[in-house]
Amino acid sequence: MLSISEYREVFSEYLENKIKVREPKNLYEPMVYILSQGGKRLRPVLLLMATEIFNADYRKALDAALAIEIFHNFSLVHDDIMDDAPIRRGQLTVHEKWGINTGILSGDAMLINAYQLFENYDGKIFKELAKLFSKTATQVCEGQQYDIDFEAREDVSIEEYIKMIEYKTAVLVGASLQMGAIVAEESPECKEAIYQYGCYLGIAFQLQDDYLDAFGDPESFGKQPGGDIIENKKTFLYLKALESSGKSEGEQLKHLYSINPNESSGKIEAVKTIFQSSGAAELTRQEIQKYTEKAFEVLEGIKIPEEKKEPLRKFGESLMERQV
Amino acid sequence: MLSISEYREVFSEYLENKIKVREPKNLYEPMVYILSQGGKRLRPVLLLMATEIFNADYRKALDAALAIEIFHNFSLVHDDIMDDAPIRRGQLTVHEKWGINTGILSGDAMLINAYQLFENYDGKIFKELAKLFSKTATQVCEGQQYDIDFEAREDVSIEEYIKMIEYKTAVLVGASLQMGAIVAEESPECKEAIYQYGCYLGIAFQLQDDYLDAFGDPESFGKQPGGDIIENKKTFLYLKALESSGKSEGEQLKHLYSINPNESSGKIEAVKTIFQSSGAAELTRQEIQKYTEKAFEVLEGIKIPEEKKEPLRKFGESLMERQV
Repeated sequence: MLSISEYREVFSEYLENKIKVREPKNLYEPMVYILSQGGKRLRPVLLLMATEIFNADYRKALDAALAIEIFHNFSLVHDDIMDDAPIRRGQLTVHEKWGINTGILSGDAMLINAYQLFENYDGKIFKELAKLFSKTATQVCEGQQYDIDFEAREDVSIEEYIKMIEYKTAVLVGASLQMGAIVAEESPECKEAIYQYGCYLGIAFQLQDDYLDAFGDPESFGKQPGGDIIENKKTFLYLKALESSGKSEGEQLKHLYSINPNESSGKIEAVKTIFQSSGAAELTRQEIQKYTEKAFEVLEGIKIPEEKKEPLRKFGESLMERQV
Repeated sequence: MLSISEYREVFSEYLENKIKVREPKNLYEPMVYILSQGGKRLRPVLLLMATEIFNADYRKALDAALAIEIFHNFSLVHDDIMDDAPIRRGQLTVHEKWGINTGILSGDAMLINAYQLFENYDGKIFKELAKLFSKTATQVCEGQQYDIDFEAREDVSIEEYIKMIEYKTAVLVGASLQMGAIVAEESPECKEAIYQYGCYLGIAFQLQDDYLDAFGDPESFGKQPGGDIIENKKTFLYLKALESSGKSEGEQLKHLYSINPNESSGKIEAVKTIFQSSGAAELTRQEIQKYTEKAFEVLEGIKIPEEKKEPLRKFGESLMERQV
């Protein structure tokens, strides 16, 4: 098996050879632009790894991996329009550079292009991949809609929040891994288990993202912490704090989430204090732990040799080891 | 075989039973809204007809017909955002009613949903349908991009224009008919011919739309004529007039296409006069005739009994008989 960085390199090379600007340029330039920016290539790497873990040649899975990466970037292009985000990966977002109309249309073409990459698989595998892809893509759209809906709601439950991040983020990780098992023509049990591993890990990862946004080390986290607090984003930490805090603390938190001061450091500190005192910070760490353990438990149960599981376990561990 | 209006009715009933609002409501309500508005159901009716013409039960083709209709409406939702159009079929457009973000996301979900409808076909047919669908959907995006690009260009050739309307409009008509042949498991020759019939007819139809916008009878055309002229839209008539007119007439036409008077009737009349005097009006009629004849020629060549072709020929004729 290759190392993670080798998979990433092989994949990036494949992508560069396959994704070129064609006519009409204004449709395909944005696609090449966003796909060439790099990023972690988390999903395609997991897909290629899963293929090898289940004893198939990862090269058979390159088109499926590319489909997943194109879909992921499609969702970024459309989400960035919806979120009015000017910058992504340190560069202008597609709609900021080319306008909203180009962002919409190039995104559409990317979504269709993702499906086309499955055409290189024969009938049965093609259908299985396309079906999983459609189910997952629908859930990603639904997750995004829940995320938008939650902004305007005051009564979002923890359960609803977990479902939202599951749909918006985790199912695509699960689907990436399952696609490796599909290409390797594994048993239904393995396909299901590897999907679950990805889902649980995806939820743990997203919860950790919520946690690190408040309590992360600015240097290792990579983003300026407190962003969610500044934007009054109802993260797991916030919802848990509302649930766990007394009445006056809860009112105070709601008040803090209703203001948008120019100088935000006071607000950030006040909110973080409540996150701690209410017990939400600790409960969030426990929840991350719970989903991480669920993931590794499922991985344990997969009927493949221990040494095959090792790379996936290590990958999962490295993801969850980001500095707090 | 059913009559056209019977196909339409059967299809609409199928759609109403199958397309319901589900959670999250804000994602699916716009989908139900636009799909329930009706419209001519041109593409699904053609698809169902083609299935029966090739000796299969049209009921086998209902899901493919629904996929095509959902895709068509997806493209309307996204195009209306790009065109900033407030009204469609006499009702508010989706983005006008729910906002641009909902328009983007609901459209995305519709595109994915269209693919999912093919899942009810078995492996081989599923792949053939999905492949044709992806190819066609990509061309529709490319056609839309060319249309946008042409707005800013002064040197659009007649050939480029035909390609644009072929991609943007005609290939989906061809694909609808071909899907009928795919569901009926027809020969490759029949599949190709029926596709060509639809493409040629689609081009003829779109050229006729250009023509009728300037010279149609307001009552039977259904839209206020002159809309393209008011919007300085470079239609076939305009491009042909530029090609066919003398220098001063050409300059005059370009000038008229650079102004946006509040009272547009004078401009419309002046442009129409040039369309006539340059010979463009007559040449456009000839071009419509040419593509209509090409369509019927291809239909002639299809190796099925005469009486099977009759409904398709009549449908084509009825489409092209709109009052001038």
